[in-house]
Amino acid sequence: MSLIVQKFGGTSVADLERIQNVAGRIAATRGNWDRVIVVVSAMAGETDRYINLAHELSPDPAGRELDILLASGERITSSLLAISLSSRGVPAISLTGGQAGIRTEGTHTRARVRTIQPKRIHQELDGGKVVIAAGFQGVDQFNEEQTLGRGGSDLTAVALAAALEADLCEIYTDVDGVYTADPRIEPSARRLERISYDEMMELASLGAKVLQPRSVDLAAKYRLQLVVRSSFTEGEGTLITPDTGGIEAPAVNGVSCDKKQSKLTAVGVADRPGIAASLFGTLAEKSIIVDMIVQNVSDHGLTDISITVNRDTAEEAERVMCETHAGGDAGKITRDDAVAKVSVVGIGMKSQAGVASRTFAALARERINIMMISTSEISISVIVQEAQAEDAVRALHREFIA
Amino acid sequence: MSLIVQKFGGTSVADLERIQNVAGRIAATRGNWDRVIVVVSAMAGETDRYINLAHELSPDPAGRELDILLASGERITSSLLAISLSSRGVPAISLTGGQAGIRTEGTHTRARVRTIQPKRIHQELDGGKVVIAAGFQGVDQFNEEQTLGRGGSDLTAVALAAALEADLCEIYTDVDGVYTADPRIEPSARRLERISYDEMMELASLGAKVLQPRSVDLAAKYRLQLVVRSSFTEGEGTLITPDTGGIEAPAVNGVSCDKKQSKLTAVGVADRPGIAASLFGTLAEKSIIVDMIVQNVSDHGLTDISITVNRDTAEEAERVMCETHAGGDAGKITRDDAVAKVSVVGIGMKSQAGVASRTFAALARERINIMMISTSEISISVIVQEAQAEDAVRALHREFIA
Repeated sequence: MSLIVQKFGGTSVADLERIQNVAGRIAATRGNWDRVIVVVSAMAGETDRYINLAHELSPDPAGRELDILLASGERITSSLLAISLSSRGVPAISLTGGQAGIRTEGTHTRARVRTIQPKRIHQELDGGKVVIAAGFQGVDQFNEEQTLGRGGSDLTAVALAAALEADLCEIYTDVDGVYTADPRIEPSARRLERISYDEMMELASLGAKVLQPRSVDLAAKYRLQLVVRSSFTEGEGTLITPDTGGIEAPAVNGVSCDKKQSKLTAVGVADRPGIAASLFGTLAEKSIIVDMIVQNVSDHGLTDISITVNRDTAEEAERVMCETHAGGDAGKITRDDAVAKVSVVGIGMKSQAGVASRTFAALARERINIMMISTSEISISVIVQEAQAEDAVRALHREFIA
Repeated sequence: MSLIVQKFGGTSVADLERIQNVAGRIAATRGNWDRVIVVVSAMAGETDRYINLAHELSPDPAGRELDILLASGERITSSLLAISLSSRGVPAISLTGGQAGIRTEGTHTRARVRTIQPKRIHQELDGGKVVIAAGFQGVDQFNEEQTLGRGGSDLTAVALAAALEADLCEIYTDVDGVYTADPRIEPSARRLERISYDEMMELASLGAKVLQPRSVDLAAKYRLQLVVRSSFTEGEGTLITPDTGGIEAPAVNGVSCDKKQSKLTAVGVADRPGIAASLFGTLAEKSIIVDMIVQNVSDHGLTDISITVNRDTAEEAERVMCETHAGGDAGKITRDDAVAKVSVVGIGMKSQAGVASRTFAALARERINIMMISTSEISISVIVQEAQAEDAVRALHREFIA
C-alpha cells in the first residue's frame, strides 16, 4: 500500500479559496496513492496574531498558555480542510495533535516530538479516509498541549512520514523549490531539481527559510524522500535525497543570505584558559545560540573574541556579556547589528579545492569587506556589512553558479 | 473552603480590554473566596465566524469537524485570560474542556455532559491557582471533542459548580439581571432581585435568552445558588433560587416574547388514532422540536392540527409534514412564518385564579388576535401575529406588573 504525506504551509491555506484549492490537489493525489496523510499549518498570519494578543496582555506570557492559544490555529485549518474535502465527496477526518498520537516532551513553545502513536491514524486510513493532522502540536505525558516552535508543521509532517514509513513526503509552500539563491536578490537564480540532505541542512540553518533544519535532520535520519514544491503551480519542486551525485556534483549548489545577524565583540579579554568557557557557559545558560566564533591572535596577553547571534537575542547577549565581564576581564563589549551572513553551500566542496580562495577573491573584486569567516565540510560562511549582503550574494552566484 | 464559579459570556470577553476588565474582577473575587473557578465563552462573534467559514465550504459540514473548529474559540479566550491574570500577579491556569475533566456523550455540536472528573481542577486549586476552564466543550469516551450547543458555556459553569459543590455560581453577561420584560420593548420593565428555578426555566425556554434552559434545569437539580449579573456594571443581578416566597408571590413575574416561531397546520387530517403519532414521530426522527400543538374539534371525521416550531427548522418541518401526508391523510400543509409567542410566567399563578382570563382580556382590549394557546402550571403562552408581538408584551406587562 503506497502512502504519501503532504504538508501545506500557512500561505497555501491562507483563505477559504486556497483551502478549496488544496482540497482539489488532495483529491487528485488520492487517484495516485492508496493512503494520504495531510498536515496543515495555521492560516498565514494567525500564529503571529495570537502571539501579539498574548503580548498585549503580558510582557512574558507563560509558555503553556501560549501553546493552548497557538495550537488553535492549526486545529481550525485542519477542520476547515476536512469539511472542504468531504463536500467534494472525499472522505476525510481532521485529527488534533493529540488525536494523531503525537507525543511531545521538553519546553513549551519549542517542544520535541518524543514518539508517535499511530493507532488512530491507521484506523482512519483503514477506513478509507484522508487523515488531516493539525501540524505544529502534540501533547505531553501529562496531557498538556505543546507546540514545536517555528516551522513545527514541517516537523509534524516529517515525523509522521518517518513513523508511518511513507513512500514520499511533500512540503507545499509558496516557493516552487529550493533555489541556488533567493530569486528576489539574484534574478538568474534557478531551481535545483535535487539537493542532498547535508546541503539542505546547511541551507536551512543558514537562513534559506524553505525548510526547518530539524525537519531536514529527521528526514535524513530516516532517509525519507522529501520534496519541496509550490501549492500554487504545477512544478516538480526540489527533491531532497540522501545523495545527489557525489564526485560529479558542482562545487557550490547554493548561495544563502541571513540578514538577521548581530556581531558582538569582547575587546581586550585576558588570554588565559577558562575565559572563553565562562563567557559561552553564561550565554548557553540563557539559551542564547552562538553562531560564529572568532578569536584574534593574542597581543600582550590580551585578545578579542567576536561572536554572532540571531539579532532577536543580541540585546540580551550584550547584557549577559557585560555582566560576565564586569569583573574586569574584558575591556568592553561592542555590538554591531548591521551585519549579515552570506554562505556558499555544496556537497562538491568535499572533493574540489579552491572554493575558499575563489569565494574571497570574488568578494574582494566587489570591494566587500569580510568581517568573520567560518567553514564546514560543505559550506563557507562570511560575515559582511548588511548593506553589502545582496551584492555579495550576486557576486558569489556569478562566480560559482551562473 | 469557600468555592465560587464565575462564567463570563462572549460580550464580556469580546476584546483585550474587556478581558483585562474581567481579570480585574476575578482578582477582586479572589479577596473574598478561597477558591475561584472561571468559565469563559468565545470572544463575541467568533463562534458565528467559524460557523460561517464552515458553511462557505460545505452546505452540511460534519458535526465532529465543526466541534474541533468551534471549541477553538473558548480555548483562545481561556488562555488569553490566564495570561492576563498572571501578568497581574494572580496565579492562573487555563484548562481545555478535556483537561478540565468534562466528559461528554451524545451528538456532536449538541452533546450532553456525561460526567466531570475534577482531579486536575482540584490539583490546580490546591496549588493556589485560579482555574479557567474553556466553556462549551468536553471530550467523549473516544477522545473526540464535542461541543454542548448554544449557551453551552452556561452549562459548563453550572455543571462544574454542581460537581465541585460550589457555594455560588455567577453568570456574567451583558444584561444586569432577569427583567420583568425585555426593556427594549417595555421601558418600564424592572430587574427582578430573585426568581425561582421554575419561573426561570419557563422564561429561558420561552425565549428570554438570559440563561440556557438546560443550565437552569441542572442548577435546580443540584439546588445551586445561581446569580445572573452584568460584567459591565456593579449591580446585584438576579438570584435564582429554589423558592421566592410562595403564596405571597405576584401572579406574574415576567412577560417574555419569542419572535423566532413558525406555525404549521395540517388541514383536513383524518381524525382517527395513529395519525398524530405518525406525524410527530417523523418530526422527532428528524430532531425537529415541536413547541405548541393544537388540534381542532373534529368535523365530519376531519380535523386540523397546528404546531409551532423554531423558525430555523420550519422549512424542514414543512417538507417532513408534506412527505408524511403525501398518502392523502391530510388535505394540505400551510405554513406561517410571521408569528410570535408571548408568555406570562409566575409561580404565583399556582395559587391565584383569573390570570388566564385577565391575559385574554388585556390582549382583546388591544385588538390582538390569539392564534394558539398553551398553558403550564406557572405560565400562559399565546401565539400572535409577529407584528403585534411587542404590543402584546406591553399590554400584559401593564396588566400584571407595572
